[in-house]
Amino acid sequence: MIVALAGGVGGAKMAEGLMRALPPDKLTVIVNTADDFNLYGLEISPDIDTVLYTLGGIANPATGWGIAGDTRNVLDAMPRLGEQPWFILGDQDLATHILRTARKQRGEPLSTITADFARHLGIPAAVLPVTDDPIATMVETPEGRLAFQDYFVRRQQRDDVTGVQFEGIEAARPAPGVLEAIKQADSIVLCPSNPIVSIGPILQVPGIRDALLHTDAVRVAISPIIGGKALKGPADRMLSTLGHESSALGVARIYLEIIDAFVFDERDAALLPEIGQLWPRSYMRQTIMGDRDDRARFGREVLEIAEAIRAEGAA
Amino acid sequence: MIVALAGGVGGAKMAEGLMRALPPDKLTVIVNTADDFNLYGLEISPDIDTVLYTLGGIANPATGWGIAGDTRNVLDAMPRLGEQPWFILGDQDLATHILRTARKQRGEPLSTITADFARHLGIPAAVLPVTDDPIATMVETPEGRLAFQDYFVRRQQRDDVTGVQFEGIEAARPAPGVLEAIKQADSIVLCPSNPIVSIGPILQVPGIRDALLHTDAVRVAISPIIGGKALKGPADRMLSTLGHESSALGVARIYLEIIDAFVFDERDAALLPEIGQLWPRSYMRQTIMGDRDDRARFGREVLEIAEAIRAEGAA
Repeated sequence: MIVALAGGVGGAKMAEGLMRALPPDKLTVIVNTADDFNLYGLEISPDIDTVLYTLGGIANPATGWGIAGDTRNVLDAMPRLGEQPWFILGDQDLATHILRTARKQRGEPLSTITADFARHLGIPAAVLPVTDDPIATMVETPEGRLAFQDYFVRRQQRDDVTGVQFEGIEAARPAPGVLEAIKQADSIVLCPSNPIVSIGPILQVPGIRDALLHTDAVRVAISPIIGGKALKGPADRMLSTLGHESSALGVARIYLEIIDAFVFDERDAALLPEIGQLWPRSYMRQTIMGDRDDRARFGREVLEIAEAIRAEGAA
Repeated sequence: MIVALAGGVGGAKMAEGLMRALPPDKLTVIVNTADDFNLYGLEISPDIDTVLYTLGGIANPATGWGIAGDTRNVLDAMPRLGEQPWFILGDQDLATHILRTARKQRGEPLSTITADFARHLGIPAAVLPVTDDPIATMVETPEGRLAFQDYFVRRQQRDDVTGVQFEGIEAARPAPGVLEAIKQADSIVLCPSNPIVSIGPILQVPGIRDALLHTDAVRVAISPIIGGKALKGPADRMLSTLGHESSALGVARIYLEIIDAFVFDERDAALLPEIGQLWPRSYMRQTIMGDRDDRARFGREVLEIAEAIRAEGAA
């Protein structure tokens, strides 16, 4: 059994690569929910949806998020009624939000709804929100404290992030199956997602960091930073303004205590001496994932790394 | 000042005819809300929307409800997630429901939201929900008690209606402006809507029937029944199963106490002796409304009838 900890686009691609490299039902993806928010009364779970759409084979390949071929007819009808939307919601994507909201209002937990959506989308992996309890990323900036989507979408990440909190996280419980999956895993993959706001909240849900520290599984993290830059999103600047190094090395340091192996991009070969010193089990690979086949290629490589370490441990 | 009491499609067409026959800002449309319901957590007001779309010039001319050229991309994306929709919601139409729901959740009353939508749609008439309080039509049938849209849409009006109740109506207060509009009106038009489930609840909101009884305005009702049949919807069968006559005469009897004049279709000329006996001020007209010009034509005819009666009264 393999467990992946994932945020949005980068995490979803890695999860897809692992899924395609594994027999059915061998993968559990534990997904960040701290970006979840409510818009127009609709419950939106951006990372869950990106993972569902990617694993379900319906994601928009151009953006990594949203649904391929989606339209914006609902949003386009809003200005006529006096509303200027600031968050892009495709029509097919809205179906997800509407059905999720209706089911949450009936009292169903996010984990049940997500599992049901995954089943209907024919996904041969378990997709688990890290928690069914509400958690919310808040970022501190020179302009004040901002809700995550306010910072991320509305203000287009233009503010320096000087602090990050996950509201509600102390009271959050891991969703059903999360701790069990970590305990039973052979390998755990920390996907190339933002270590601060995507993997960060997953690790801070009470019980999860502990489970990771005490599991027998081989724990492998993949750097989302290549050449000092994030492929997508504000991880690079966020690392810098929060006092980390915006590099694979900076990411490796964050994960130091909870991983067995670190994978970073070949383009960062110059960092090998430093990363290798910090963490002997470091691996350089082509970490940028292109199409499905390329994702499966990288999924296989990551699994091979984990397998090799397991074999070593068993020897 | 002219006031129209309206339900959905027939009421909206009449309201449009009156609006086009009047100078701007002379018309107030008081709209039934007893069909309102919640679907997927969205607040849907079918009659309000039909009136807004019709007066705003964006209604689907083929159906009378919904928006011209609307798509169903949201609904079409639902079966993939395990939901089989039973109620048609177009994408542009959904924008209305989503924005209304969000504003209601923020505490805005339906009347404020409706007025704002009407303003944004450039409608030169006041559109008022009959009440901001929740009222809900329930129909009794041999299959049991059904919520209105369950009867109307899901079960396609196949059940005999043996009783009708409007839940919450005793506690409902007329929305701001409703009683004032009735008191200040020169003429009040009961549109050719279903007398039981469209005009019925408007009349039963406490204070409205009384205001109609005591107004100085000329009150004109238009029969929605032609040749014993409703142009649209189940009014004909509903009248029969509730013990009324399914004819213009049956409708005239229902409105007897609260109107000054009754307008019915030329095709029902055979009913003139009976209706004329019941109600001396009865008028035969071409009541089926086609395009915009035809609606304006009928609007002018109804206004002329009311004006003639007013002139008589003043003489």
